[in-house]
Amino acid sequence: MTSPTATLLISCPDQRGLVAKFANFIYSNGGNIIHADQHTDFAAGLFLTRIEWQLTGFNLPRELIAPAFNAIAQPLQAQWELHFSDTVPRIAIWVSQQDHCLLDLIWRNRAKEFTAEIPLIISNHPHLREMAEQFGIDYHYLPITKENKIEQESKQLELLQQYKIDLVVLAKYMQILSADFITKFPQIINIHHSFLPAFVGANPYHKAFERGVKIIGATAHYVTSDLDAGPIIEQDVVRVSHRDEVEDLIRKGKDLERVVLARAVRLHLQNRVLVYRNRTVVFE
Amino acid sequence: MTSPTATLLISCPDQRGLVAKFANFIYSNGGNIIHADQHTDFAAGLFLTRIEWQLTGFNLPRELIAPAFNAIAQPLQAQWELHFSDTVPRIAIWVSQQDHCLLDLIWRNRAKEFTAEIPLIISNHPHLREMAEQFGIDYHYLPITKENKIEQESKQLELLQQYKIDLVVLAKYMQILSADFITKFPQIINIHHSFLPAFVGANPYHKAFERGVKIIGATAHYVTSDLDAGPIIEQDVVRVSHRDEVEDLIRKGKDLERVVLARAVRLHLQNRVLVYRNRTVVFE
Amino acid sequence: MTSPTATLLISCPDQRGLVAKFANFIYSNGGNIIHADQHTDFAAGLFLTRIEWQLTGFNLPRELIAPAFNAIAQPLQAQWELHFSDTVPRIAIWVSQQDHCLLDLIWRNRAKEFTAEIPLIISNHPHLREMAEQFGIDYHYLPITKENKIEQESKQLELLQQYKIDLVVLAKYMQILSADFITKFPQIINIHHSFLPAFVGANPYHKAFERGVKIIGATAHYVTSDLDAGPIIEQDVVRVSHRDEVEDLIRKGKDLERVVLARAVRLHLQNRVLVYRNRTVVFE
Amino acid sequence: MTSPTATLLISCPDQRGLVAKFANFIYSNGGNIIHADQHTDFAAGLFLTRIEWQLTGFNLPRELIAPAFNAIAQPLQAQWELHFSDTVPRIAIWVSQQDHCLLDLIWRNRAKEFTAEIPLIISNHPHLREMAEQFGIDYHYLPITKENKIEQESKQLELLQQYKIDLVVLAKYMQILSADFITKFPQIINIHHSFLPAFVGANPYHKAFERGVKIIGATAHYVTSDLDAGPIIEQDVVRVSHRDEVEDLIRKGKDLERVVLARAVRLHLQNRVLVYRNRTVVFE
Repeated sequence: MTSPTATLLISCPDQRGLVAKFANFIYSNGGNIIHADQHTDFAAGLFLTRIEWQLTGFNLPRELIAPAFNAIAQPLQAQWELHFSDTVPRIAIWVSQQDHCLLDLIWRNRAKEFTAEIPLIISNHPHLREMAEQFGIDYHYLPITKENKIEQESKQLELLQQYKIDLVVLAKYMQILSADFITKFPQIINIHHSFLPAFVGANPYHKAFERGVKIIGATAHYVTSDLDAGPIIEQDVVRVSHRDEVEDLIRKGKDLERVVLARAVRLHLQNRVLVYRNRTVVFE
Repeated sequence: MTSPTATLLISCPDQRGLVAKFANFIYSNGGNIIHADQHTDFAAGLFLTRIEWQLTGFNLPRELIAPAFNAIAQPLQAQWELHFSDTVPRIAIWVSQQDHCLLDLIWRNRAKEFTAEIPLIISNHPHLREMAEQFGIDYHYLPITKENKIEQESKQLELLQQYKIDLVVLAKYMQILSADFITKFPQIINIHHSFLPAFVGANPYHKAFERGVKIIGATAHYVTSDLDAGPIIEQDVVRVSHRDEVEDLIRKGKDLERVVLARAVRLHLQNRVLVYRNRTVVFE
Repeated sequence: MTSPTATLLISCPDQRGLVAKFANFIYSNGGNIIHADQHTDFAAGLFLTRIEWQLTGFNLPRELIAPAFNAIAQPLQAQWELHFSDTVPRIAIWVSQQDHCLLDLIWRNRAKEFTAEIPLIISNHPHLREMAEQFGIDYHYLPITKENKIEQESKQLELLQQYKIDLVVLAKYMQILSADFITKFPQIINIHHSFLPAFVGANPYHKAFERGVKIIGATAHYVTSDLDAGPIIEQDVVRVSHRDEVEDLIRKGKDLERVVLARAVRLHLQNRVLVYRNRTVVFE
Repeated sequence: MTSPTATLLISCPDQRGLVAKFANFIYSNGGNIIHADQHTDFAAGLFLTRIEWQLTGFNLPRELIAPAFNAIAQPLQAQWELHFSDTVPRIAIWVSQQDHCLLDLIWRNRAKEFTAEIPLIISNHPHLREMAEQFGIDYHYLPITKENKIEQESKQLELLQQYKIDLVVLAKYMQILSADFITKFPQIINIHHSFLPAFVGANPYHKAFERGVKIIGATAHYVTSDLDAGPIIEQDVVRVSHRDEVEDLIRKGKDLERVVLARAVRLHLQNRVLVYRNRTVVFE
């Protein structure tokens, strides 16, 4: 399976023949489909699909795939994305003081659990510079105050451009991004340390302790301007009991956070997540 | 282990020697402790414990245990309950139209998963009368409207008295009880079909679907006047995906609901749940 | 989605164009695909797929679908099954003394969690006759000894024929079926009360207790002549601790057993399970 | 709770008054119990308990606690261990080529999830020397062949002595230790990459894939001379499907392995694990 692949993520109004039309496009050009999955949202009248095929032996040169597919997609009013598996996406990881998600993502990247380059870490604290240097990643310390937030966000945007970043991962970055920033750079995944929509906002572990829940969770989601309300990619939970103090919830939560965030990042990088109407279809 | 046992559930301000004092009370009277567990809530400065011992060979006759223990408890400002394992509690199950939790509780009772009598079913619908009759349980149909609610609640209270009910289990009873009712009969366990505190109130499965969560849950809790905010006894969850329509969430949720409710009822009937400050300690 | 559907389960040697060919067969005959999923077993060189489409508007009459599809399938050396969603399969449930899986399957069938008729219960014990009668299901008591086993199996086969049974569900039937029986009636799902392949054979809960495991499981699988080694359809687990005696494992296990068995039966009845090489692909 | 504590782990033949006797020993010497839990194995006739109390204000000096308690324990035929929370245990981590468990344990130790010193890494491969040096830990490369195994084990024992090691953690060390070695150094925790007792021995992920299981697991256990059969401390599982190739099982398994191993090490270091009859009581 080392042949490079192309992947189409498509959503379009439901109608007869969509599976056949898309499959024929690949087949008639000599492609070998290695993954095809679909979902129909009957309430929304939408057909959503992911098709991945091997490029070896495919007759269309890469640069012609998009225009050729567009000729099919336009009459169907389809929205679509095309990705190539040998394009290595570039990730910026944003952190505050906690290192567990950062270290975990770096370790997984080195262990080739997903394919990406991580050239940039941005933080509102100086604490994790040493870890960044240990792994040879540039670290930019941009402290945030109420006064300088807009200014710092424009610097952050510049950095994302400069480093040609495709995806921002908020790996326990404890600051809220402005709606303006999100509009300008919408590809952002966040890890929230609760089972959303329970305990939105700050200090979810304290709130969970206070409420006396028997299970805590973590949620990875795309960031939208509506705080903690973006499309959910992945969630997981762990049991707790009355014996768990807040610090135990935090400790147990860390294990959840890093696993849930890593799964979400991996699914995104494999182009398995299709977002529509503030929801996700995850083609696993 | 067929010897009857006595169980003390105690909460009192934390201080040295509590374990020794309570254990000595049992031991000096010839009792054999078969379960002792404790928890300290350091923030609240509270010591919480459950002690269960065999009555065979215990020197104090049953009627003297409470006064004898009170002499120890009072100087410690302890709050406590005393239960005997061979007292069979009487349960009233309240339902609306759904039968899965009701059938499950009846089946578990017959399978001796817990020891209780279920002489009474109350419902605001007539649908489940046949099932009640099948198992020889009295069924009282008390429809609820805005106008007759107070009146019906007084009839319900009369029924609870008449049937000598110790515990009300709301097994998908889709009505809200008044604060006044709860004050008069506070021993009520409810099953809420969400992972509280997410999705309080009505239609949690529709809300969960709308939000696009990847996990749904169920919560069993004691009922308080604050809707869906009572002390949580037990929770559990199950994975869902974009393929699950609302009806799938409801179906999967039913499996959760009956298991979570049954566990909570069993823990309560075994006197393993100690409530304080709107939280529970579950001595498993 | 109340339109009846047809479902094809196909496995064939992997090659280019399969998705397109199968989709075109549906589309060119006017069908609307509502579910299509595929899996490639690269090691085995096999392509496995499930395609479901609405029969309303489909140009081929039902009786011609199989021969028409065969013309496509044969050159591809494909093995395939065709099912119609409005064919109601007939289930025989086999039990011994325990009732929880039986009651659960009956309840789910009545709650329309799956579509089936359950006209027949076979047991090697007389205990559950009353429950069978309560639900109006014929109950055949066929006690098994070493001596009469072959004889009884031929009676059992007769009953399956007589009642036109499509699927046998061993719902805690504590007898081993002969290889000969399984050859004659291969559509059998069993629930094994362990996390296979741990604790094959008898008394898995006692073995689990003895081994001191921290998690127990249940496994639903198709029955093959190799005991407890048939293709696994579904598994689930639950945490246990040192506090759980064997009877607690049995009690907790029952909750697993009925859920796991019900899921497996439902997946089978929805034609979502494709068996190959003693493995299953479950198209969820 | 920063006061140092003492912890007793006791197992003795069950009899009346044990809770009182042990509690009185603490109380009469001015100690404040902060954790007391017990378990009775009725089949074995054994009482097992863990008691932890604050040393601040305790009248007995540390060196007299053991002899004083022995006077109580001996007549009861009790076996017991005494631990002090401010004694920092010394761990040697043994690895082969995989780094995930090693890195995880180091990270957790630095994050103070447990209190220990990790001065020594032993490996039969040279691969992880760089990581060891990065964290300032001595790395000893001792390759193992059939011929040199006994010789290398004696070197390993010397290293354990030299570094004053209290606990060996086999963090994916892919060699079997001799019975002789285990007798000489019995404090060893291993992570096995399956849900024991399923898939003992080598290549469990390949076996799990072959068997087509729907769930995989990991098991942390004390090492005994009987391979993969030592007392289980902790287990956990994760769902897999037909889509998971062997490499996916390995990847998902790694997340399990590091979490399960870390939990087991933490429980051991907090003196929460009591071993008897090849089983564990975990006082959580």
